[in-house]
Amino acid sequence: MDAIGRAARAASAMLAAVPAEAKAQALRAAAARLRQDCGRVLAANAEDVAQARARGLTGSLVDRLVLDPARVEAMARGLEDIADLPDPVGGIIAEWERPNGLRIRRVRVPLGVIGIIYESRPNVTADAGGLCLKSGNACILRGGSESFASSRAIADAMRAGIASAGLPADAIQLVPTTDRAAVGRMLAMAEHIDVIVPRGGRSLIERVAAESRIPVIKHLDGICHVYVDAAADEAKARAVVMNSKMRRTSVCGAAETLLVDRAAAARLLAPLVRDLLEAGCEVRGDEAVRAVDPRVRPAAPEDWDTEYLDAVISARVVDGVDEAVAHVNRHGSHHTDAIVTEDRAAAARFTGRVDSAIVLVNASTQFADGAEFGMGAEIGISTGKLHARGPVGAEQLTSYKYVVLGDGQTRP
Amino acid sequence: MDAIGRAARAASAMLAAVPAEAKAQALRAAAARLRQDCGRVLAANAEDVAQARARGLTGSLVDRLVLDPARVEAMARGLEDIADLPDPVGGIIAEWERPNGLRIRRVRVPLGVIGIIYESRPNVTADAGGLCLKSGNACILRGGSESFASSRAIADAMRAGIASAGLPADAIQLVPTTDRAAVGRMLAMAEHIDVIVPRGGRSLIERVAAESRIPVIKHLDGICHVYVDAAADEAKARAVVMNSKMRRTSVCGAAETLLVDRAAAARLLAPLVRDLLEAGCEVRGDEAVRAVDPRVRPAAPEDWDTEYLDAVISARVVDGVDEAVAHVNRHGSHHTDAIVTEDRAAAARFTGRVDSAIVLVNASTQFADGAEFGMGAEIGISTGKLHARGPVGAEQLTSYKYVVLGDGQTRP
Repeated sequence: MDAIGRAARAASAMLAAVPAEAKAQALRAAAARLRQDCGRVLAANAEDVAQARARGLTGSLVDRLVLDPARVEAMARGLEDIADLPDPVGGIIAEWERPNGLRIRRVRVPLGVIGIIYESRPNVTADAGGLCLKSGNACILRGGSESFASSRAIADAMRAGIASAGLPADAIQLVPTTDRAAVGRMLAMAEHIDVIVPRGGRSLIERVAAESRIPVIKHLDGICHVYVDAAADEAKARAVVMNSKMRRTSVCGAAETLLVDRAAAARLLAPLVRDLLEAGCEVRGDEAVRAVDPRVRPAAPEDWDTEYLDAVISARVVDGVDEAVAHVNRHGSHHTDAIVTEDRAAAARFTGRVDSAIVLVNASTQFADGAEFGMGAEIGISTGKLHARGPVGAEQLTSYKYVVLGDGQTRP
Repeated sequence: MDAIGRAARAASAMLAAVPAEAKAQALRAAAARLRQDCGRVLAANAEDVAQARARGLTGSLVDRLVLDPARVEAMARGLEDIADLPDPVGGIIAEWERPNGLRIRRVRVPLGVIGIIYESRPNVTADAGGLCLKSGNACILRGGSESFASSRAIADAMRAGIASAGLPADAIQLVPTTDRAAVGRMLAMAEHIDVIVPRGGRSLIERVAAESRIPVIKHLDGICHVYVDAAADEAKARAVVMNSKMRRTSVCGAAETLLVDRAAAARLLAPLVRDLLEAGCEVRGDEAVRAVDPRVRPAAPEDWDTEYLDAVISARVVDGVDEAVAHVNRHGSHHTDAIVTEDRAAAARFTGRVDSAIVLVNASTQFADGAEFGMGAEIGISTGKLHARGPVGAEQLTSYKYVVLGDGQTRP
């Protein structure tokens, strides 16, 4: 691991000085090589899938693992999309002059070396590796054991492509073992790794956060809320609630809890609940919600703290925006929450007081996504407040330095 | 500690919604109360000083501890200066509209709760508390045992002033014990504290960084370099080197190593070394440096990695800007480094490749200071790359959230 760390540090020093176009060309070369090596990647993936089935993995876990030509092509195109993004490095974030004539510039620079620890999705190898390279960072990838052969084949193709474009292959390194102890060593290499980004289920992320001696950008799941205010428009409320919950139930931006203002309950609760039930969503409600439809199940206390990631929603009535804010801040995960209202004051109070990375007014929580924000590819959504909050794209994988231009100034 | 954490979290939720002028008034009220309680603060300080002397503390440690009316007045004025700074919270950092009509705003918000762990300077209680309040954060202060009574008296005065202005007194809390175990508990309260800022010597900072379960913004000392390039102007080189080393030798921005381009050595090495020696600075040099003056002592390998914080400098000749950059990145502390040159290409190569928070061209390393940058008060200089790098002022104690304004948009 130490040799990997030193190689990554050396590569990152080179990458920091590489012009934007050279990085874009390396990403396109990696994409081309990935297409060229598609057969090799699929063969490696077949090994992984066979072993997974042998170990008796279930359908959804295997499905995450399986690659086919379309998925490999999607990875390659993803790298080309990253190549086409604006380069985040080198831009002047701010510039000002001091009375003594010093010109101070805050200039965007790469973070350095990024450690990515992920589970069974082999495409993370390409997505994360590409985003790190775009932002001028070297990365150390530690994929899941189930997808090890696939990840190695993908990483080998990308390294070959990067090298063919004249950049250091060690810009992307895959930890060459599935030994769990390697993760522990990685999380202790503070001298070689600047930030750790875990991608996977809560248990992985919690283990990484608990063990890491290196700062962690957490990509946590979300307990997202939709609050329907007294001043909500019925059509918008019904559209936003339905889309937030049912568009895709397995994403971290999916709504898990519906809050309805008591003053709007008589008007909106029945249609909102009926829409959800008729769409095949189980509704677990408080007494007021259960009163509008016998199919509503009683909500238990733990429902308010549960991320279903399924066609299930908890629902309750609250007394106005302040009780809604209190519920969200107490039971939510500081990820993404929405208010539906035509009342600007209520919207401002909700967006101002809800302590979440993303707060929406009259829009679906499922917009919680870097691409939907116009940031291009993302490595995840940060629910932490330090450094990066919300979608983590190429720009969030950078730091800055101060460049101060003088003419011989000395400090009195 | 848990009760303190919960109280801080509750106070931070209130502070996040407080308008700028209310925070400024609370800071002025805290300053007024500090002046009013000056006698009480000095009496408490006298206790601390007596105990310190009884425990046989040395002159400089006691000097850091001692308060007098002028130092209390300086703390009060410092709080008023912070009150007059622009408020960092609530500003729109970026705003854009998506093709679907969603308007996305990145809005500056407080971090939440900041834990400050410091040593014997009681004025940190006022400076750090004021800066946290300015940025809308609650803070938990853990002062050194030597200055405990002084810190408590200062914190009590500030809390009373804040409360008199209608803001929660728990915006500033002092850990009411000098028990070392309290620090360990503080560093584990990730649910109540969002970031830890240690202020003090290397041993304190290293202990905090090693133990903390909470992100740490490190304010480390600095091994700062001045590189005098072949194309350096002699007058600027002599002024910048002398000021970088000798203006104040005890600050983290003081230069510790002089690097001179071999191509400039014949012209500049002798006057640079003579200036330093005649100013009373010990010079430890390589052979080329020793050759210009018999008073130069031989540099040992460890000199290149030593922060003297004293009238001592290590000096060597390097082969051009690339060897200078390599030396700085290998031996420096990523804090502050300067190049003296009239050659724009050399300056750009140095500023682009030196991996430090602050890189100066033709200016003294002693400008490494938030006030000198025009940022007003600072809580320290971050040598880390995540979240904050360089001077950490009120703005660096904030995060952001995304506020997304829609009109009923749903995601396809």
